[in-house]
Amino acid sequence: MKRIVVTGGSGFVGRQTIAPLLASGFEVHLIGRYAAMVPHCTGHRIDLLRDDPAPLLAAIAPTHFLHMAWYAEPGKFWAAPENLDWLAASLRLARGFAAAGGWRLVGTGSVAEYDWSAPLLDESVTPLNPATLYGTAKAALFRTLSAAAPALGLSFGWGRIFFPYGPGEKPGRLLPDVIDALAASRRVALSDGGQVRDFIHVADAGAALAALVASDVPGAVNIASGDPQPLRTIVGLAAAQAGDARLIDWGARPRQTGEPDRLIAATTRLHGELGFVPRWPLAAGLAAMVAERLAGPTLQA
Amino acid sequence: MKRIVVTGGSGFVGRQTIAPLLASGFEVHLIGRYAAMVPHCTGHRIDLLRDDPAPLLAAIAPTHFLHMAWYAEPGKFWAAPENLDWLAASLRLARGFAAAGGWRLVGTGSVAEYDWSAPLLDESVTPLNPATLYGTAKAALFRTLSAAAPALGLSFGWGRIFFPYGPGEKPGRLLPDVIDALAASRRVALSDGGQVRDFIHVADAGAALAALVASDVPGAVNIASGDPQPLRTIVGLAAAQAGDARLIDWGARPRQTGEPDRLIAATTRLHGELGFVPRWPLAAGLAAMVAERLAGPTLQA
Repeated sequence: MKRIVVTGGSGFVGRQTIAPLLASGFEVHLIGRYAAMVPHCTGHRIDLLRDDPAPLLAAIAPTHFLHMAWYAEPGKFWAAPENLDWLAASLRLARGFAAAGGWRLVGTGSVAEYDWSAPLLDESVTPLNPATLYGTAKAALFRTLSAAAPALGLSFGWGRIFFPYGPGEKPGRLLPDVIDALAASRRVALSDGGQVRDFIHVADAGAALAALVASDVPGAVNIASGDPQPLRTIVGLAAAQAGDARLIDWGARPRQTGEPDRLIAATTRLHGELGFVPRWPLAAGLAAMVAERLAGPTLQA
Repeated sequence: MKRIVVTGGSGFVGRQTIAPLLASGFEVHLIGRYAAMVPHCTGHRIDLLRDDPAPLLAAIAPTHFLHMAWYAEPGKFWAAPENLDWLAASLRLARGFAAAGGWRLVGTGSVAEYDWSAPLLDESVTPLNPATLYGTAKAALFRTLSAAAPALGLSFGWGRIFFPYGPGEKPGRLLPDVIDALAASRRVALSDGGQVRDFIHVADAGAALAALVASDVPGAVNIASGDPQPLRTIVGLAAAQAGDARLIDWGARPRQTGEPDRLIAATTRLHGELGFVPRWPLAAGLAAMVAERLAGPTLQA
């Protein structure tokens, strides 16, 4: 019997983990303040920041745990003190899961944990040297749970998520803002666009996390497409579907402080060790995202 | 008005911070499960692992906070899951202190945070690369609070304690066990004794932490004597006072796994930046420790 507890299951990436978890035979329990009614899952309301999760975890008695909940307010999460609260809550959850007899724990980190000056961000080589409080707190959780796993009797994996895009992405992020502007024939001011990034379709990110927690692959695994491209290419593919790409003013804005030329993920662990096969090539994923986004308002109207 | 909250004030090092804090004009509040009646201080009973500390901290409204409480069971603390609980509790305390309007926070770390292969353990140069869960959790707290201090509006300092010795040291540690054996004319089996270590008298360690929290020196400061010596010398000085030093079988036991040749502290931050002057030379400190230890049983009898 595989019984999994999921936190953050209603988030942008989190909601994409549910179907693959169900498909691989898990009994799925969602816990959290927003643990909603999701078909084929059991929801348990709990305030992860205030309530002791140990009794609930003991009652569920999960074998697996996928922990994705974190403070994620766009723009604010990089430096917010709430990062401390979620680090503390995550430690409590890990203790409660171990005490309940669980054996496989997967947490979720970020490209923000790495030293961004490295030419390739490799799980086993690149130093962790986060430039932000968010990255620092995530790296602290990774390091502490890695060191604690033997004492807790846990198999511990860690998904380090790169740049997920796709359906459900909120305004305030690059692609939604570009698509919405072009659909309304508004101009968009962007930076030079030469930054190389690894964008992964959010459904692939969710499926990769589901595969990671179902496996016993230990340690950090980059959750990335392995198809790094300049932002100019990525945005261009979306723009061509969304409207008049000439409305984009490339270079009209400076890069943000500390924005590096390239953030390229090693994917040998994801594709080789875990054996994960992504389903969405970049062009198809972006086309589907634009179609969904343009259809969205019509369906709601 | 300088009002300080102290955790761990009844511990081996912690109890040595109280007199110097009082002497430098602090109103001292001890909080914790064992916050006992200490003259000239106010004690507040609270379970730091279970109770929300925010209301108590808001009621005290401290300007300063010296956080020393941690799981410290000899032999067990290196790998115990309780390290996760104290990391989580420490984050809650920092949040509660900041919310209560405090401005100066000092936490306590350890030589165990460093990469032990470095010839000199220097706060600003030596990488953190702990070999234990204890060191990992302490380093995680240091990194997270360093990154969070701006968002919390706090001045943040961190005392990295080396090898404290002196009155109140418990059996199960090197010097107490040697002194007790020699006083009873028993043989003691030790390793080769060539390991160079920085031993600091516990009263100096306590005074240094009190000076650190009273200052606004930011970041990590080694709490060490700056007088590194081989264990053979350190133990020899104590043994000469305690009994027949020939009862020590040097080399009869192997070193523990991972025990390095030298752990030498840089002390330019402690002595230069903080201006701290230790009061106990090694020979005098060890002589006083032996005298106190040999007198102890007589006084209790």
